Amino acid sequence: MPELTFHGLDIGTVEPGDDLVGRIAETTAEGYPLEDGDVVVITTKVVSMAEERLVDADEVEVSEKAERVADVTGIDPREVEYIYRESDVIGAIPVGAIGEDVIMDHAVDPEAAEEAISALPSALVTDRNGRLCTNAGIDWSNAPEGQMTLLPADPDEGARRIREALEDRTGTDLAVVLADSEILGPGSMDLATGCSGIQAVDSNFGRTDLYGQPKIGGMDMIANELTAGSALLFGQADERIPVVVVRGLDYEDGEGIPNSGGLIRRGLRKTIQLTARLKAREWI
Amino acid sequence: MPELTFHGLDIGTVEPGDDLVGRIAETTAEGYPLEDGDVVVITTKVVSMAEERLVDADEVEVSEKAERVADVTGIDPREVEYIYRESDVIGAIPVGAIGEDVIMDHAVDPEAAEEAISALPSALVTDRNGRLCTNAGIDWSNAPEGQMTLLPADPDEGARRIREALEDRTGTDLAVVLADSEILGPGSMDLATGCSGIQAVDSNFGRTDLYGQPKIGGMDMIANELTAGSALLFGQADERIPVVVVRGLDYEDGEGIPNSGGLIRRGLRKTIQLTARLKAREWI
Repeated sequence: MPELTFHGLDIGTVEPGDDLVGRIAETTAEGYPLEDGDVVVITTKVVSMAEERLVDADEVEVSEKAERVADVTGIDPREVEYIYRESDVIGAIPVGAIGEDVIMDHAVDPEAAEEAISALPSALVTDRNGRLCTNAGIDWSNAPEGQMTLLPADPDEGARRIREALEDRTGTDLAVVLADSEILGPGSMDLATGCSGIQAVDSNFGRTDLYGQPKIGGMDMIANELTAGSALLFGQADERIPVVVVRGLDYEDGEGIPNSGGLIRRGLRKTIQLTARLKAREWI
Repeated sequence: MPELTFHGLDIGTVEPGDDLVGRIAETTAEGYPLEDGDVVVITTKVVSMAEERLVDADEVEVSEKAERVADVTGIDPREVEYIYRESDVIGAIPVGAIGEDVIMDHAVDPEAAEEAISALPSALVTDRNGRLCTNAGIDWSNAPEGQMTLLPADPDEGARRIREALEDRTGTDLAVVLADSEILGPGSMDLATGCSGIQAVDSNFGRTDLYGQPKIGGMDMIANELTAGSALLFGQADERIPVVVVRGLDYEDGEGIPNSGGLIRRGLRKTIQLTARLKAREWI
C-alpha cells in the first residue's frame, strides 16, 4: 500500500542571516538522514529570515498613495508602501469586518485576538510573481519587533538554491517546496510560494476514470497538497517546526510554480461576465 | 520529533450500495489495524456510492429554468436541474474558456482532454449546506455510464455514521473526514465536505508568535489540510485508493464543518465594496 511520512524538524529559531541549509543538514544528519526522493517543505518565513528580507518599519518612506490606501484599509502605511513596491494590488478584503464573530469564537485569548484583529482590519489581494497572495506575503509576525518580513525575492529561485545546497551537503536527490499560510475563506491554510525539483501541478488531465470515461481532474496541485499536509505539523504560532520532510511520494521532476497571475485576472473577468448572464437567464 | 503517516487503502471498487464500513474494517484488519486517534479520510464519491446517491440521467425532468441555464453555461441540463435542487447557485466560472491553454499543456491524452473540456465548459459556484463548492458536488466521473452522483445528503452526518460504525467494529476511537476535489485557481485540490470526531478549524486565534506578539493565524483549516495531504495518495482518476488513514496527528474532538455560506456571501459583498473604495483612493 502506498504510504507517506511527514516528519517535522525542530531546527530552532532562525534569526536573520542564519545558515538555513546548514541547520537542516545538521538536524537531519543527527536524527533523520535525508534520502533520495525526499521532499523538504520549508515555511517561507524562515527562508526570508535567512535571506535577510527584513525591513525596519521606522525607515520606510511612505508615499501619498500608500497613505490614502492605508487610510481606507486600516493597514499600516509602511506595510502598504512595501505591498505596492512588491506586487500588483488587485483588491482588498475587509477581514476584520467579515470575520470578527467567527474569529472571536475561535480565540483562545480574546484580548490578544482583539489586538490582532485591530492590527489587521483588512488584507490586500495581490499578484506577486504571477501568484495570488494577500499583502504580497509581507507580515510582522514571527519577526523581531518593528520589522516586517518580505517574501524571498524569487521564491522558486530560493527553493532551487536550497535544494542544490542541501543535495551537495547530503549527497541525495531532493525536492524543495516553500510554504506560506494564506487566508482561504473561513480560515487559513498553507499554500506553495515556490518549488524546485518537483512538478507543482500534476499533468494527468484527460486521463480516464474507473469507468473508462475521460475525466476533468488530474491537475492536482501537488505542491499545495504538500504544504497543506505539512501545515498539520508547522502549527501557526510559536511551534518551532518550520521544516517537514515528506518521504514516500512518487513525483515528477520540475522547476517552479506556473505563473497564474494572467489566468486568474482573465478568469475573474470572464467569471463576472458569465455570472451576470447566468443570473439574467435564471429570471427571464 | 512529530511525525504523521498517511497510509493509502486499496479497498477495491465501491459499487452502489456496497458496505463501505465493512470494506474499510476488513482491509485495515488484514494489513493496517486501526488505532486510537487515527483519522480516516475518505473520498466523498465512495460514500455517495455506498449511500446510493446516484441519479439516472435519462429519468430527470428538466425545468425551463434549468434549460436556460444549461444553454448559457453549456452544462448538461439534467445536471443543472439537480444542481438547483441541491444548492443555491451563486455564479458561474467559464472553466473551459479560461483554462483551455493551461489544461491542454497538462494533458497526457489531448483527445480525451478535448472531450473532457467540451463536456464541462463551465462550472456553477454553489452554496450547499453552507459550504462553497462547484456544481453542488454533482458529477459524472467514476460513476456508471449515464449516471450522476450527488453528495451525501448530509456529509457531516454521513461522516458521523461511518465513524461510529467503524469504531464499533474496531473498538477504537477515530475521526472521519470526507474529501472531494475542487477547482482552486489553476488546478484542483481535495477539500473537506464533512467531518466527525475532529475539530475542522483550529481554535488558536490570538496566540502569540515566537516574539510574543499576538498573531493573525491559528485558524488552520485542519480538515482541509488532511484532505489535501491525502489527495497525494488518492490520485484523481483510476487509482483505487479512496481511503487514507492518517496516524500521529494531535487533534481536538469536534463535529462537522462550520457553516460558512453566510460568511462567504457577506464577505464577497464587503470585499467588492472595499475594493471599489481602494481603487478610487489609488488614483485620487
